[in-house]
Amino acid sequence: MTPPAFPTTTYLSAPDLVQLVRRLGFSACLAGIAERIEQDFLRWHEFDKSPRLACHSAEGVIELMPIADAQRFAFKVVNGHPGNTRLGLPTVMAFGVLADMDTGAPRLLSELTITTALRTAAMSALAAQHLARRNSRHMALIGNGAQSEFQALAFRDRVGIRTLSLFDTDPAASAKLAANLHGQGLQVRICSSTAEAVQGADIVTTLTADKTRATIITPDMVQPGMHFNAVGGDCPGKTELHPGVLQAAQVFVEFEPQTRVEGDIQQLPADFAVTEFWRVLAGVAPGRRSAQQVTVFDSVGFALEDFSALSWLADKAAELGIGQVLDLIAQAPDPKNLFGLLQPPRLAVVAGARAAASSAEFPAAARRQKA
Amino acid sequence: MTPPAFPTTTYLSAPDLVQLVRRLGFSACLAGIAERIEQDFLRWHEFDKSPRLACHSAEGVIELMPIADAQRFAFKVVNGHPGNTRLGLPTVMAFGVLADMDTGAPRLLSELTITTALRTAAMSALAAQHLARRNSRHMALIGNGAQSEFQALAFRDRVGIRTLSLFDTDPAASAKLAANLHGQGLQVRICSSTAEAVQGADIVTTLTADKTRATIITPDMVQPGMHFNAVGGDCPGKTELHPGVLQAAQVFVEFEPQTRVEGDIQQLPADFAVTEFWRVLAGVAPGRRSAQQVTVFDSVGFALEDFSALSWLADKAAELGIGQVLDLIAQAPDPKNLFGLLQPPRLAVVAGARAAASSAEFPAAARRQKA
Repeated sequence: MTPPAFPTTTYLSAPDLVQLVRRLGFSACLAGIAERIEQDFLRWHEFDKSPRLACHSAEGVIELMPIADAQRFAFKVVNGHPGNTRLGLPTVMAFGVLADMDTGAPRLLSELTITTALRTAAMSALAAQHLARRNSRHMALIGNGAQSEFQALAFRDRVGIRTLSLFDTDPAASAKLAANLHGQGLQVRICSSTAEAVQGADIVTTLTADKTRATIITPDMVQPGMHFNAVGGDCPGKTELHPGVLQAAQVFVEFEPQTRVEGDIQQLPADFAVTEFWRVLAGVAPGRRSAQQVTVFDSVGFALEDFSALSWLADKAAELGIGQVLDLIAQAPDPKNLFGLLQPPRLAVVAGARAAASSAEFPAAARRQKA
Repeated sequence: MTPPAFPTTTYLSAPDLVQLVRRLGFSACLAGIAERIEQDFLRWHEFDKSPRLACHSAEGVIELMPIADAQRFAFKVVNGHPGNTRLGLPTVMAFGVLADMDTGAPRLLSELTITTALRTAAMSALAAQHLARRNSRHMALIGNGAQSEFQALAFRDRVGIRTLSLFDTDPAASAKLAANLHGQGLQVRICSSTAEAVQGADIVTTLTADKTRATIITPDMVQPGMHFNAVGGDCPGKTELHPGVLQAAQVFVEFEPQTRVEGDIQQLPADFAVTEFWRVLAGVAPGRRSAQQVTVFDSVGFALEDFSALSWLADKAAELGIGQVLDLIAQAPDPKNLFGLLQPPRLAVVAGARAAASSAEFPAAARRQKA
């Protein structure tokens, strides 16, 4: 009888992910991930959810983000180190794993640095589709680093944004963003301050990286009907919005227990009312109530979004034949004989000879077995 | 100016680990890991510790085990699925990562299935060196699956065990263990029951896999002075020792908050007194108090042991030149230009041309910059 096939682990490297995005197209990837996130948020109660585990140091944070449904377990490991760009390193680096719940076998190991940027933008756009005014065309992008192009294009594709006002304390970052957006059907304007960029915007996306209690957006900048997509305030001690902005708005979150600790609402009392976004999607809570209401999506990034992205990647990698098989798990012919793998090949006890060897070389054992 | 080198990620596959163990020798690996565990347990307070995060299903459990000191972050992902062997899969499969705390960059991704067996045996032997009677020579091994050879040889090398009494409900498992131990300087006897195997033993090691409240060891089997190395009872609902065995013994644990939930002591009230093993190593708590005392090491497996093993692996892999570089993290020439990686090579905006492109193609942006 042939033993069942050992479940393989597919590895998607960073170059594999680049290849996958180039072959499918950037917008198709954003759309695919956004749709998967929407489907998964609509089955919110099928997931075993917990806030991520964070490990902090003076320079930054490293986080583990696990989640599972009945079939699959996923986790991401991701860091946030604002000083990294001075060393030529990304602020955020990530990778993750998808495993089978019925055996625990890892089935996909993937880069998630590029993917995190895609899924964060897809999530932001999905939230804005339900929370921003329907005729939103003008977005301010505060913080023009690694994630800014992803947000710009997701809001163009999925929300209908046509005009962008950019601001970053690093003018080179804004110039880079503007250059990358050339020919993408967006009117782009570089501003000299946050206040200038925010002026007249329908949506304000904040993507700043400093791990401090920053106040990027103050109440005087807020205009009726604005939607704030607050992405950068995502760990304890790292905020972007003045508390007054939150207090005057209806605030939506991904997973409340995590956002209370990590989001901009960490500045407010624990009983400050927020709405989990899945409830809006599911139609059990209202989203925006009027054209005048100010809405905030206090985004921190939740494990379910990575689950969705990893599931989507697994499907697409299989369809396109991208990725390689990784020999991460020791495959012993007899799973109870892990030790046998460590023996030099010539000395390995082969399965068929095992009983004989036992009888011949271990008389006591043989006697016992016969008894 | 040359940009600083991007920190590389070394990948150690399962075959790499086999090669590493064969080249260094099994006993040298056990010794190296045991010494690293001892050093790390002696600096207990330098670690950011938390109980592992477990995700349970009907078939088993998948766990994430993070830990960090000021320099390095480590985590392991490990499953426990007792039904896996029926599918030809290992009950326990694992892999893990070591990352730099100052940047978050992953530096080592390694198989940890074989390594977990090594580090668990090294930890058990280290505990027994301090908790079992000094003249212990005879060990009973209850449960003769994938981890049993590792325990047998660790106790031979580091505790002085010369005689083993084996029992497993699967006789083929005991025969496999006996065959693998041939020529290893151990007298091996296969028994027909746990009671028979335990009779006359100085140390009893339990390594059973069933995810149930099993009662492998009952009070009538206990003899004065015995040391119990209880390894298999390691998650909620999975125990091996009758509560009476624990109540009559001095119980030592790795990390109390985790063992209260996962260890055999989950059967006892939360105020049942236990001693964290690092305190014995550090000389701030007594270990064994008399030759008559019964001691229990209620082992569940703690993240610090994996940290030690991963650190040791990183050093040895570098010394031996084993492993390969893994392109897990996207390396953009400009870390703020992650998006640039996704563009077709011919369209990529090169760094030097960026400002010019911005001025030429974005008149509004150029005007703004000049203002």
